[in-house]
Amino acid sequence: MNFRAEIDVMPLKELLDPQGKAVAHGLQKMNFDGVADVRIGKHITIKVNANSKEEATTQVENACKKLLANPIMEGYKFEIVQE
Amino acid sequence: MNFRAEIDVMPLKELLDPQGKAVAHGLQKMNFDGVADVRIGKHITIKVNANSKEEATTQVENACKKLLANPIMEGYKFEIVQE
Repeated sequence: MNFRAEIDVMPLKELLDPQGKAVAHGLQKMNFDGVADVRIGKHITIKVNANSKEEATTQVENACKKLLANPIMEGYKFEIVQE
Repeated sequence: MNFRAEIDVMPLKELLDPQGKAVAHGLQKMNFDGVADVRIGKHITIKVNANSKEEATTQVENACKKLLANPIMEGYKFEIVQE
């Protein structure tokens, strides 16, 4: 079965996000007044071929832990969608 | 009212995504066999203060067009969530 994983890898809340701060500052300079607290991370989509949704979930969980997210600085969450 | 925008900015389908290719290659080397077609973009969260969901949507749409996404190389989609 074919699945698609939609993964968000974001800087942990406790950490500064200089890229987000720069974008927030840019938006304010461009007169976006109600905008604050911008945080920027990665969005990753992966096609996964697996026998079940559980197997796909395990694969993606392992991929996040071992390669996609740096646990010292980043958290991740994902959704598995059947295609 | 306070809203949170969850924005995904992804490289257009027509374009190569070298970062995604590198990650796909890395995953295959690590014996993630069923994994293919990795694409990597940005995930951006923004807090928006606006009078209505429509106003928040307009602000975020403009922010995407003017600053967050490069229309030549990237597409974007977003969700507005009330907080």
